Amino acid sequence: MAKIGGTELGGVCRLALTDLDRQGRDLFCQWAENAGCDIDVDSVGNVFARRRQMGRAGLPVAAGSHLDTQPTGGKFDGVLGVLAALEVIETLNDHSVRTLAPIEAVVWTNEEGARFGPAMLGSGVHAGEFDLDYAYGRSDGQGLKFGDELVRIGYAGKTKAGTHRLGAHFELHIEQGPILEQEGLDIGIVTGVNGIMWYELAIHGFETHAGPSPMSARRDPVPVAARIIPQIYEVAEQAGEEARCTIGVISAEPGSTNTVPGKVRLTVDFRHPKADKLQQMDRRLQALARRLDTDRCPVSLSRTWHSPPVAFADSCITAVQEAADACGVSAKSMASGAGHDSVYLSRVTPTGMIFIPCRDGLSHNELEEITPQQAAMGTNVLLHALLGAAGTA
Amino acid sequence: MAKIGGTELGGVCRLALTDLDRQGRDLFCQWAENAGCDIDVDSVGNVFARRRQMGRAGLPVAAGSHLDTQPTGGKFDGVLGVLAALEVIETLNDHSVRTLAPIEAVVWTNEEGARFGPAMLGSGVHAGEFDLDYAYGRSDGQGLKFGDELVRIGYAGKTKAGTHRLGAHFELHIEQGPILEQEGLDIGIVTGVNGIMWYELAIHGFETHAGPSPMSARRDPVPVAARIIPQIYEVAEQAGEEARCTIGVISAEPGSTNTVPGKVRLTVDFRHPKADKLQQMDRRLQALARRLDTDRCPVSLSRTWHSPPVAFADSCITAVQEAADACGVSAKSMASGAGHDSVYLSRVTPTGMIFIPCRDGLSHNELEEITPQQAAMGTNVLLHALLGAAGTA
Repeated sequence: MAKIGGTELGGVCRLALTDLDRQGRDLFCQWAENAGCDIDVDSVGNVFARRRQMGRAGLPVAAGSHLDTQPTGGKFDGVLGVLAALEVIETLNDHSVRTLAPIEAVVWTNEEGARFGPAMLGSGVHAGEFDLDYAYGRSDGQGLKFGDELVRIGYAGKTKAGTHRLGAHFELHIEQGPILEQEGLDIGIVTGVNGIMWYELAIHGFETHAGPSPMSARRDPVPVAARIIPQIYEVAEQAGEEARCTIGVISAEPGSTNTVPGKVRLTVDFRHPKADKLQQMDRRLQALARRLDTDRCPVSLSRTWHSPPVAFADSCITAVQEAADACGVSAKSMASGAGHDSVYLSRVTPTGMIFIPCRDGLSHNELEEITPQQAAMGTNVLLHALLGAAGTA
Repeated sequence: MAKIGGTELGGVCRLALTDLDRQGRDLFCQWAENAGCDIDVDSVGNVFARRRQMGRAGLPVAAGSHLDTQPTGGKFDGVLGVLAALEVIETLNDHSVRTLAPIEAVVWTNEEGARFGPAMLGSGVHAGEFDLDYAYGRSDGQGLKFGDELVRIGYAGKTKAGTHRLGAHFELHIEQGPILEQEGLDIGIVTGVNGIMWYELAIHGFETHAGPSPMSARRDPVPVAARIIPQIYEVAEQAGEEARCTIGVISAEPGSTNTVPGKVRLTVDFRHPKADKLQQMDRRLQALARRLDTDRCPVSLSRTWHSPPVAFADSCITAVQEAADACGVSAKSMASGAGHDSVYLSRVTPTGMIFIPCRDGLSHNELEEITPQQAAMGTNVLLHALLGAAGTA
């Protein structure tokens, strides 16, 4: 799979709904059909591969993730979860295991959001977070529409998105962080996903020539930015070790060496697994912006996104815990720092996630790496979690 | 002149060597010919309009500036100095004044550097700072070459650049700063131009996903940037009131809300009228960068430009001082914070500058404004400075 869109540095560039994404999906469907699966594609392009078997008790128990990647992404983010689901089905076939509920491997459309924003669009439409029309209307950088591109690659399925119901969903994923590796653990039992708040903060000054204006006469937003930034990190620090704070965009406008900037813009990404702590961070950031707002350099803050913390279903957390115990691997409970399809899925289906370590915690990077042993351990835990949830005949 | 490239907001967009620049030059030449001038264009497009007269003692005494503007520039930056020179010639004609040395009005090519970098290219080639080939090879944002564009608009003259020698050069210019206005003065007697040092400072971190990495495991360059910035301003503060410090570019890369930046880049623009103080600022910035350089977040600093302070010729400063006295205007001596054609001209010709106030010190801005009275006062001082330098019959 990694050959499709493979990059020189060993990564993958397989953006959603490109010809490469189609090739990846076709390959998945071919492998799934070889493994005796029936394919169902819904109207947002999510692909459900159901293992044919006798037992049909209840809704299918699914495992899945995504095949699309970042522009300079790795081979494992998302793809691991999809291929592990197929591997589970092949293993069940090899051992002639009959489950009570059917087993499915699922490909969710456009998780990365790298070509069409927002991220997690396929699982979001499935879970009712987004309308199908909204998804179809999303544009990429060239102005091409999601809906047109979905039709073009032949993955606008007939099943109405959201109607293909699941009894449970498990997602195996690389941690995308360093904790498991640093602690020498095999498996993360994911209890939920951090809540996220995004902000745009702007400090307004007055654009002027770098030469003539005396320093005292300037309304320079840059020193104000330098004063605000450490206090933003401090807000996160006050919310404890689980808090995350990222200032990913800083930009001085117009951005000319010999012009005092008229404006400094920055983004803030706050994350916390606990809703009350995240709200506390939010209140403190709002207060900070008000405190530093002056007539000389007005400060404006707007919250651009809020994704509340997600707690996964106890039944699924327990299933993963018991699977880890059954496999004899070392494991710890942890929250996911990043968003995943599981965030939206958890709104409509009992959902669980399994993390395995990745080298140096590196992800969204062509150098993303795991060992075959790590992949096997994660897939074994996924297998047992699915068996636990589906029941065996 | 302001109609050529005039903008809705009352400013001017007349980038160097565009069709609009040609129209501006043609209008200047037409006015100069109407005023009885002979036109000489050199190979870098500088235009010399010499007043025809009997007396030809010594090299011509010139006044000039530039006609090109910033993309959203004003009506007066540069243009004032060119049209005031023509006004002086017309006034001398009206009063049948005969000078000992001939008088010239000069248009210097591409002062702004907004279309073709670096700035002050025409005066720079004239003064031997740049080769003609270097100037011809400069590209604009579309890849068009300076030399081709100069030929295209018909201003690649036959006179070899640098051979049209001048006995003295005076430049009337708006201050582009607030000092004269704030102090209620009519005229700035410019004693020289601030030295300038430009730097690129980069703080290197490690790009990682905003979610999973614990704060303690990150190599985030942003807090380091916030720590460095106030100390950069402090370096300038320590060099006294005449020091200027501008951080015009700040940019976090790759610049994504949910990615810890791998690098923060910023530029520093240091200015000071005294060479020793500017050197002190340079040493302290270098030391600061070394002090904050760590294995975790390496800091690199490179000096990208150094323009030493310029001291204008005593003879020209005195000529402007005496002219201001003769006109009965209020005046103070001051250094120019910004670069001007006079910086390069002063290397090959005794050079002086005259400032008049501009509203709110505003420049490089469509709202740039002066009053007709201010223009007249500046032009009168220019007239008398030229008469002083040229001598009258």
